Amino acid sequence: MKIVIIGGVAGGASAAARARRLDETAEIVVLERGEHPSFANCGLPYYVGGKIESRQKLLVAPVKMLRERHRLDVRTRSEVTQIDREKHIVHVRNLDSNESYLESYDKLVIATGAASFRPAIPGIESSRVMELRDLADADRMHAVVTSTAKRAVIVGGGFIGIEVAENLVSRGIHVTLVELGDQILTPWDREMIGSIDAHMRAQGVDIRLNDSVERFEETQGGLRMLLKSGETMEADFAVVSIGVRPESKLAVDSGIECAPRGGVVTNEHMQTSDPDIYAVGDVSQVQCFVSKTPIQIPLAGPANRQGRIAADHIFGRESSYRGTQGTAIVGVFGMTAAMTGLSEKVLQRSSIAYEKVYIHPSDHAGYYPGAQPLTLKLLFDPKSGVVLGAQCVGTSGVDKRIDVIAMAIQAGMTVFDLEEVELCYAPQYGHAKDPVNMAGFVASGVVRGDQPLVHANALAGDNGAFLLDVRSESEFAAGHIPGATNIPLESLRERKSELPQGQKINAYCKVGQRGYVATRILMQHRFDVANVSGGYTSWGHHQH
Amino acid sequence: MKIVIIGGVAGGASAAARARRLDETAEIVVLERGEHPSFANCGLPYYVGGKIESRQKLLVAPVKMLRERHRLDVRTRSEVTQIDREKHIVHVRNLDSNESYLESYDKLVIATGAASFRPAIPGIESSRVMELRDLADADRMHAVVTSTAKRAVIVGGGFIGIEVAENLVSRGIHVTLVELGDQILTPWDREMIGSIDAHMRAQGVDIRLNDSVERFEETQGGLRMLLKSGETMEADFAVVSIGVRPESKLAVDSGIECAPRGGVVTNEHMQTSDPDIYAVGDVSQVQCFVSKTPIQIPLAGPANRQGRIAADHIFGRESSYRGTQGTAIVGVFGMTAAMTGLSEKVLQRSSIAYEKVYIHPSDHAGYYPGAQPLTLKLLFDPKSGVVLGAQCVGTSGVDKRIDVIAMAIQAGMTVFDLEEVELCYAPQYGHAKDPVNMAGFVASGVVRGDQPLVHANALAGDNGAFLLDVRSESEFAAGHIPGATNIPLESLRERKSELPQGQKINAYCKVGQRGYVATRILMQHRFDVANVSGGYTSWGHHQH
Ligand SMILES: Cc1cc2nc3c(=O)[nH]c(=O)nc-3n(C[C@H](O)[C@H](O)[C@H](O)COP(=O)(O)OP(=O)(O)OC[C@H]3O[C@@H](n4cnc5c(N)ncnc54)[C@H](O)[C@@H]3O)c2cc1C
Ligand SMILES: Cc1cc2nc3c(=O)[nH]c(=O)nc-3n(C[C@H](O)[C@H](O)[C@H](O)COP(=O)(O)OP(=O)(O)OC[C@H]3O[C@@H](n4cnc5c(N)ncnc54)[C@H](O)[C@@H]3O)c2cc1C
Ligand SMILES: CC(C)(COP(=O)(O)OP(=O)(O)OC[C@H]1O[C@@H](n2cnc3c(N)ncnc32)[C@H](O)[C@@H]1OP(=O)(O)O)[C@@H](O)C(=O)NCCC(=O)NCCS
Ligand SMILES: CC(C)(COP(=O)(O)OP(=O)(O)OC[C@H]1O[C@@H](n2cnc3c(N)ncnc32)[C@H](O)[C@@H]1OP(=O)(O)O)[C@@H](O)C(=O)NCCC(=O)NCCS
Repeated sequence: MKIVIIGGVAGGASAAARARRLDETAEIVVLERGEHPSFANCGLPYYVGGKIESRQKLLVAPVKMLRERHRLDVRTRSEVTQIDREKHIVHVRNLDSNESYLESYDKLVIATGAASFRPAIPGIESSRVMELRDLADADRMHAVVTSTAKRAVIVGGGFIGIEVAENLVSRGIHVTLVELGDQILTPWDREMIGSIDAHMRAQGVDIRLNDSVERFEETQGGLRMLLKSGETMEADFAVVSIGVRPESKLAVDSGIECAPRGGVVTNEHMQTSDPDIYAVGDVSQVQCFVSKTPIQIPLAGPANRQGRIAADHIFGRESSYRGTQGTAIVGVFGMTAAMTGLSEKVLQRSSIAYEKVYIHPSDHAGYYPGAQPLTLKLLFDPKSGVVLGAQCVGTSGVDKRIDVIAMAIQAGMTVFDLEEVELCYAPQYGHAKDPVNMAGFVASGVVRGDQPLVHANALAGDNGAFLLDVRSESEFAAGHIPGATNIPLESLRERKSELPQGQKINAYCKVGQRGYVATRILMQHRFDVANVSGGYTSWGHHQH
Repeated sequence: MKIVIIGGVAGGASAAARARRLDETAEIVVLERGEHPSFANCGLPYYVGGKIESRQKLLVAPVKMLRERHRLDVRTRSEVTQIDREKHIVHVRNLDSNESYLESYDKLVIATGAASFRPAIPGIESSRVMELRDLADADRMHAVVTSTAKRAVIVGGGFIGIEVAENLVSRGIHVTLVELGDQILTPWDREMIGSIDAHMRAQGVDIRLNDSVERFEETQGGLRMLLKSGETMEADFAVVSIGVRPESKLAVDSGIECAPRGGVVTNEHMQTSDPDIYAVGDVSQVQCFVSKTPIQIPLAGPANRQGRIAADHIFGRESSYRGTQGTAIVGVFGMTAAMTGLSEKVLQRSSIAYEKVYIHPSDHAGYYPGAQPLTLKLLFDPKSGVVLGAQCVGTSGVDKRIDVIAMAIQAGMTVFDLEEVELCYAPQYGHAKDPVNMAGFVASGVVRGDQPLVHANALAGDNGAFLLDVRSESEFAAGHIPGATNIPLESLRERKSELPQGQKINAYCKVGQRGYVATRILMQHRFDVANVSGGYTSWGHHQH
């Protein structure tokens, strides 16, 4: 068995190492265009920023190790330029000698990843307009940020743009971030990201939403950018990070089926339309675990696992990929945003019925020092309660809650299951009722009809409704939703005659909990009442 | 409907609050012996230690709030002395006036918790021999530790003993911890706890295993203790924390079915043998979620959820408790131990077939600064791969991994599921292959027969075997398992003729990964080989 693997990083190296463990006799050739296989893409921003000091650390599995330990025929600076499926050969160019040769295969794995997308903006070819995908990019950016650079413009507020922004700031560089959309971190729902946006601004990042760069011009030692808004900006350099595109040209050219968005179409064993050819990682199109529709999400975990599955299948094992769930996390200036499953906007776009709740618990028991606020949004099927997605933002304990809910989604669990799950509790780690349980309680109450909800983003449309603020008088005085009437929860039972029977009442408090208790009281007195999910806090999140 | 609840903290207050949300008209009486309902038991050690500065913070839901917000008839300093099931009344003593009265009920909830166990050791009645269960205990201990106390002896190395030890040390008190067993934190398997034990000793805690106090004697301003080992010890005070016993006397006396170990027997709705009487929290005996056998585990999460379920059932809802899974966590001097499901010793005691793997990953990507070691033990069914339990120890990311595996157990997942789960990954939070995936890979390989295992604790019995160390020469020189022969993995293929065909070979490395690769290589060359799970590290953990 001779296996040729194109691309030697997350998906490719994983396929290669697993293949060797499965078969000592196989010939395994890894062809990698770059200087190093198996490097830590995800560490590049932190190397640029100096958090990771040693470049050496980024080389997760050096060539020597892959050769000696796994007996892989790893060839770096070796670019595959063509796949000849008929003859079962690939054309390889040695980028040092510039010579080309042919390499035959029994099974081929395409693990070429995805390239940074560079739109056709005039001037974008300037060497001052950088991107960050591989070590060579990182080296270039490292050189710039450790020299005299003072100002940078980042185009695109996705994961990489955000991470680069933080790392440039930590180098003392002033960063302007230009984002075409009306929010940064578009995989999340907009109202969840406002606090990250505000936090970044507070750290000095100048964020420009709804804008884009229309032209780059090199100046004496710098770069000038013309924005769509008409503004002109000067900086030492720019970073373009507006997404990636599958590097599927080899596949396209050889007639392997690719999706309109560029990904190589694969089945559950990561096989392409040519059964002797597999595609894994960012280059492939897979199924969404939740919606069962095609997706391309560039993530390291899926790439690694897909490589392993492809190797298994090459050796006759029935391993199969379950689909990508979209579990993602990003940290910036000490804050964390994480998500799993489908977002509200994707649910809307896909016309999938859903309901949602917001809660605002602390990461651990409030009576133990250092408790930090979290915002957790849970999306679920309004009838069955099956969990469809979750998003969480905060400074601590964010990854844990999303990992836990990611498990729930993997297991097909419902919000009723979340009520009952038994998680670690001691006061420095969580709550006797963990935020995950709490989200389960709230969502289950909604599905069971115990708690009619109204959402903060729908309040404005609920014109005829009576808006009831059940917080204390001092909380009300410090700020409230326009048009609200204040009756503190504690006196609601005595003062319920002040409320209109027959009219819709929307009740709210700070986070939703007292609003819920008020809702329970009023429902039992036959008022037509709903609770504002997430309360004044979620209402605030929708105001920007 | 008139509901009477005995005990107003975790289980009782939760039942009461939920009952009110379900029914505005119900009469709900909460009878609490202590001065405060709804206090944070779990915070008491940290209040003693000064980490929680304000006593006020421990009062999670003050009486005023329970009365005003939930309209609960909360009566503190009110002890129930008898249940008359026939007449549906309880006898209540007002501890301030010392007067008694009768209170009728339609439904009764027993939420009396569990009392610290005080064995009949001579002198244990001394006021210098303390315990820590409630606020009054905490007040007494707080007074002592903030006065002139310099030395304390803690009897019992369970959760509370460990937490109290840390908190006394942080008050500058010298602590000796006497534990009857051969390990502290007995819910965990012994080899998992060695690092916690060593860490506590390094912080100055004098741990005495396999010993116990046989006599307490008050001295001039202090306490003298005579140990089983013959030693005599002097201290300012002692803390007895050798476990708790359900406070089920009321139930026993009124003829409600109780288990031999004292817990009130309950069904899945938390009903006792008397359908009008429920028992929730530490006083109740429930089912183990994994083994489906009766257990009593005193944990705050289950108590809270059981209270909620009892309230539901009182109002005709079919909510049911799924059993306690044993998810537990303890922090001490910056280290964390957590577990979920069954331990190896419980599996052995219950004669449940199991296999186990150990892995020693870091909490997050090694190339990102601050990565800390974890030890993760996964227990699973050797045939089906169903996850039975997990234990994790480290300084960071411990709670997350156990919570994730707790979800797997709740969902009935297998080790094959753990291979595929998609968790958050960015380098500061985890790994592209999270430790949970990694444990899944290793365990799946074991179930599939790809990786025959030998356990470090069984090595000594494997006398006829050839012990192969595949680490580097320098690692070998720095220490190895006695009797091992060193052939570094990288040269194993060339040097395999040095190995005995026909003889059993046990291969190991530092953590198990290279040992596994060696196992794969040698298996394919028809050697009879097994990998030492967890490698030299796990072997070390078994040596103490
Ligand atoms: C800056 C940055 C930060 C990231 N952070 C995270 C994160 O925090 N979490 C996360 O989950 N994911 C993150 N990612 C994404 C993650 O790195 C990718 O999803 C993952 O590496 C994809 O693996 P892959 O094997 O498909 O492609 P890659 O790892 O990109 O490897 C593809 C390789 O193929 C080579 N190649 C391409 N074409 C050819 C050819 N014709 N011939 C030979 N070789 C070729 C390329 O040189 C490249 O080295 C990050 C990515 C970047 C760039
Ligand atoms: C110091 C300490 C630390 C802990 N740390 C943790 C932790 O980190 N994580 C965790 O999960 N669990 C922890 N626990 C355990 C947790 O607190 C208990 O599992 C939980 O409180 C049990 O709830 P409960 O309602 O059954 O009993 P309790 O919370 O103990 O409440 C029972 C109440 O009933 C009252 N009562 C008893 N008898 C009568 C009577 N006859 N009449 C009237 N009232 C009566 C008692 O005064 C008491 O207030 C800790 C416990 C202690 C003591
Ligand atoms: C490192 C790399 C070459 C993959 O190598 P790999 O050997 O497949 O993966 P790992 O080193 O994680 O080891 C996993 C294997 O070791 C086994 N293993 C791990 N720990 C073990 C232990 N303690 N005992 C026994 N086996 C163990 C696992 O079972 C698994 O083997 P399997 O797949 O046959 O079941 C590849 O992941 C890579 O190039 N990574 C860097 C690039 C990258 O991922 N970038 C994106 C993220 S920054
Ligand atoms: C506080 C205490 C009285 C319980 O009160 P509780 O109201 O049942 O519980 P919580 O305050 O956690 O609130 C949970 C309720 O609010 C609802 N809720 C919480 N956040 C909400 C939100 N943002 N929007 C809507 N509803 C929300 C939940 O759905 C749940 O209601 P439900 O049970 O009817 O579904 C009780 O837990 C207690 O005494 N705790 C302290 C003692 C203790 O637990 N000790 C051991 C640990 S230290």
